[in-house]
Amino acid sequence: MKLQGIFPPIATPFDSEGELYRTKLRHNLEKWNQTGLAGYVVCGSTGESVMLTAEEKLRLWDWAAEYAAADKLLLAGTGMESVRETVWLTNKAAEMGYKAAMVRTPHYYKNLFSRKEAQLLFFRAVADQAKIPIMIYNWPQATGVDIPAEAVAELSEHPNIVAIKESSGNLEKVMQMIREVKPGFQVLVGSAPTLWPSLQVGAVGAVLAYANAAPYSVITIWEAHRTRDFEAGLDWQNRIGRAAYLVTAKYGIPGLKYAMDLNGYYGGPCRLPLSPLTPEAKREIEEAFRDLKG
Amino acid sequence: MKLQGIFPPIATPFDSEGELYRTKLRHNLEKWNQTGLAGYVVCGSTGESVMLTAEEKLRLWDWAAEYAAADKLLLAGTGMESVRETVWLTNKAAEMGYKAAMVRTPHYYKNLFSRKEAQLLFFRAVADQAKIPIMIYNWPQATGVDIPAEAVAELSEHPNIVAIKESSGNLEKVMQMIREVKPGFQVLVGSAPTLWPSLQVGAVGAVLAYANAAPYSVITIWEAHRTRDFEAGLDWQNRIGRAAYLVTAKYGIPGLKYAMDLNGYYGGPCRLPLSPLTPEAKREIEEAFRDLKG
Amino acid sequence: MKLQGIFPPIATPFDSEGELYRTKLRHNLEKWNQTGLAGYVVCGSTGESVMLTAEEKLRLWDWAAEYAAADKLLLAGTGMESVRETVWLTNKAAEMGYKAAMVRTPHYYKNLFSRKEAQLLFFRAVADQAKIPIMIYNWPQATGVDIPAEAVAELSEHPNIVAIKESSGNLEKVMQMIREVKPGFQVLVGSAPTLWPSLQVGAVGAVLAYANAAPYSVITIWEAHRTRDFEAGLDWQNRIGRAAYLVTAKYGIPGLKYAMDLNGYYGGPCRLPLSPLTPEAKREIEEAFRDLKG
Amino acid sequence: MKLQGIFPPIATPFDSEGELYRTKLRHNLEKWNQTGLAGYVVCGSTGESVMLTAEEKLRLWDWAAEYAAADKLLLAGTGMESVRETVWLTNKAAEMGYKAAMVRTPHYYKNLFSRKEAQLLFFRAVADQAKIPIMIYNWPQATGVDIPAEAVAELSEHPNIVAIKESSGNLEKVMQMIREVKPGFQVLVGSAPTLWPSLQVGAVGAVLAYANAAPYSVITIWEAHRTRDFEAGLDWQNRIGRAAYLVTAKYGIPGLKYAMDLNGYYGGPCRLPLSPLTPEAKREIEEAFRDLKG
Repeated sequence: MKLQGIFPPIATPFDSEGELYRTKLRHNLEKWNQTGLAGYVVCGSTGESVMLTAEEKLRLWDWAAEYAAADKLLLAGTGMESVRETVWLTNKAAEMGYKAAMVRTPHYYKNLFSRKEAQLLFFRAVADQAKIPIMIYNWPQATGVDIPAEAVAELSEHPNIVAIKESSGNLEKVMQMIREVKPGFQVLVGSAPTLWPSLQVGAVGAVLAYANAAPYSVITIWEAHRTRDFEAGLDWQNRIGRAAYLVTAKYGIPGLKYAMDLNGYYGGPCRLPLSPLTPEAKREIEEAFRDLKG
Repeated sequence: MKLQGIFPPIATPFDSEGELYRTKLRHNLEKWNQTGLAGYVVCGSTGESVMLTAEEKLRLWDWAAEYAAADKLLLAGTGMESVRETVWLTNKAAEMGYKAAMVRTPHYYKNLFSRKEAQLLFFRAVADQAKIPIMIYNWPQATGVDIPAEAVAELSEHPNIVAIKESSGNLEKVMQMIREVKPGFQVLVGSAPTLWPSLQVGAVGAVLAYANAAPYSVITIWEAHRTRDFEAGLDWQNRIGRAAYLVTAKYGIPGLKYAMDLNGYYGGPCRLPLSPLTPEAKREIEEAFRDLKG
Repeated sequence: MKLQGIFPPIATPFDSEGELYRTKLRHNLEKWNQTGLAGYVVCGSTGESVMLTAEEKLRLWDWAAEYAAADKLLLAGTGMESVRETVWLTNKAAEMGYKAAMVRTPHYYKNLFSRKEAQLLFFRAVADQAKIPIMIYNWPQATGVDIPAEAVAELSEHPNIVAIKESSGNLEKVMQMIREVKPGFQVLVGSAPTLWPSLQVGAVGAVLAYANAAPYSVITIWEAHRTRDFEAGLDWQNRIGRAAYLVTAKYGIPGLKYAMDLNGYYGGPCRLPLSPLTPEAKREIEEAFRDLKG
Repeated sequence: MKLQGIFPPIATPFDSEGELYRTKLRHNLEKWNQTGLAGYVVCGSTGESVMLTAEEKLRLWDWAAEYAAADKLLLAGTGMESVRETVWLTNKAAEMGYKAAMVRTPHYYKNLFSRKEAQLLFFRAVADQAKIPIMIYNWPQATGVDIPAEAVAELSEHPNIVAIKESSGNLEKVMQMIREVKPGFQVLVGSAPTLWPSLQVGAVGAVLAYANAAPYSVITIWEAHRTRDFEAGLDWQNRIGRAAYLVTAKYGIPGLKYAMDLNGYYGGPCRLPLSPLTPEAKREIEEAFRDLKG
């Protein structure tokens, strides 16, 4: 399975009561379907997965599979702290037609899970029981755990572990993994502010929160990479730099959803304690997205 | 409500298939019922709450309420990342007779949740809707978020936020909170290695993983504090120091469950990726608990 | 050599040109000489040692030795990154009559110096060549390196390493060291906000920046400890809590020097980039020291 | 002044007594003079500057100026914690013909110096008094302080602050600085493992410890960048990846000096507590440098 190109980890639309908002999910997917996005990750961190019940995830997977265009690859965010629950969710997603599962590193018991051995055990146990391939998902800025490149290299030997989404923005690690993993294992990144250099050093694709709001700009970077247009690639990277920073590191999902609203997608509210933006934050985002359309 | 004394955040017993093991929970509770423990926290971090489904938590609360002696105070660990799910679980526990809910700080979106304002918003929103009082639960070693003392002081003004379990082991912060919170707000600690000095500076109680395995020793420290027996208190603190370190920071819940097995409780297996101890780790724990009985 | 009691790591007085200010050093020492302080540490972190040339340190040691009362124990802060320069400074201090040297952990090359082996090598090499005993000095909040308790236990076997000043405020580590070091090795602490509980668990003394400005209050805590007056000890600890925080963690040496000025000592300016306080910071300090006299 | 190209922060040669070794410095410089290196940084972190006295630095600057070829740009590492000493050293270097001073961020009093304002104050005060231009030097892995991109942008307005050496390896920050600094301000990097992508996004040069031992490989990357040979650039980046990691993050200066010895330069011993490599470490380095010649 080829995981190349740009994937948004899609935002989960909620109505004003905080309930899943099916028609808005449909609206967003129908709009994204018309872009060159490679596929969708449903129930990733940007989808507020930690705010969702298992039952809500099943509904979202079901709906997204219904509304996604046939040419879009479907991935499910299924990582939980336990092997058991991760496997259960992964195999539910498999039944619904999802092609791979994105599984974040377990991290709550940091004294234990920051050890390489615990990560190896977790991902091997999940991959052994999963009916679809596994993409490791590493986001140390949220989890506080950073799976080492050597562990990823070891896991790349497992026939059912096929990729990593590395969201740290650490280019040295990205290059090290590309050098050391088994041929065929795919390294994707999850940091829009370093998309261009990551592609330049060999990342095959990216899962980008930012792509929810302004997919064309990152698809343009991807196309510049494919066509070896180095000026355009760097130029577009610099154009999105500030906007990408605002809707990830600085304002997070509330910022991203506001940018979605600006660009014709449905962003809407987050679940608390993710809270609405201040007027000043909104203005910053408006300014940054002025020339970055949906 | 007085939260004084020693509370174990009880370990969750699993059978060899990884299922909840009701008869072993009963065994443990009946044995703890005979001690001077003040009560039980059901589904805390030590109870592997991040490995449990919501439905399993409800079952555990139900069973623990059935087997706990009448004089033991019942607390439920109900913290989730969202206000919504935390409130739902808290009110389920309230219906089952739990007297208070222990709610950990939300932490996944660290860039946002490490801000004091997000913590204030979360705990106020939860407390406003909760049918039982809230105890804040702060364990930065796991969550990567450390709620500041000033935020705790502000939250102590809320009529339905009555206590904190501070598990950092940071004595300066414990003292600062005791000085600055509203009178009546109760500061408990969650670190056995600093139990004695914490009580000496004014903590009113403790929620201690270690107390699952060797409750008498920490109850002895509590009694030494009550009776102002300073030699005994410090002596017992030093006796438990290494054992407490092994079953928390060094070996975590697998270590604690092994110590429970040694001391006549049912520890049993953890859910993966928490994994069995090596023989060497077991020997270390046996050695450290030689004179610390259940 | 007994290192018990309270030692200020004395502030270095500068005139308005930034030169060493001998008469003000004399003024401060003559005033401290009348207190129950156990001795002085000259050229520690609070003495802005990292802002001083080697030649200036020699002058300060010379002058302090001249003005210190005969009953005050003299220690010199001599730690540098290299064994070579640390030994040279230590033996210069020895020639001037200093009784021990306080040597901070090397830390610049953190990838290497955060390993226990590098710390063992450093302190053993220094102690082998030093003509006076060595006190290890650990302040991870500044150095970014935290020498582990096990390393301190190993170093306590060295005949010329006699003490540690542990400034982390970590009570668990203080207790662990007290349990594990060779009998006779002395554990002092360097954190005023946790002075009382540190003495309660067995620390034999303290080196406290705060003691520059308000020595009587911390000497009172020390005396409460000696006479087992638990109410007074805890009460005074709580009285100094906020003031101690302001002149260390929050405002650092500029804050401490301002408090010295308030209390009849000469504080004066720091060397840049340590910069003057804002009027608001001054007011905070005035408020906190209102009832804490020099 | 153009700071483009590759600069080694030259290692300081010591003899077996730990004294400066002038003839070996000459040997190294004469060998480097024959390469395409752009110049030399004398007394940087790799030069063990924190292990050197001020007097030794003056001698090294003098000797290096004597032996460096006329076409090599000379920079002096002059950063100390105080403005005062930094200015003094900088102006000494200026007198000896050095063209710019590389000044690391002050960092010892982290609670204060991690604030942007302290960094602005320090660099402005130094630059105001320095007779040669200042290059900011940021290496958070050693200092524990990371000067923010916004502070660098503000400092770039100062007429005597002309460049930054950013050693964090953080590509996002490198790109942000390039976007936000005043035109003409030069961004160099200090991390060999991310050299190629850094040049691709606009860094104008690099100061690389690794270049001491194997300058040709990094000059090749630089030339690939100049000639827009993207395959060669990435290929060589991947060839040096492991070697660069070993002589910086993993084994530090002792590793680098061993690699220098392998490649016909004089590496020799470090000052303690930097300690000799184990035989196993030596073998790892031999292996990694097999095809990377001096």
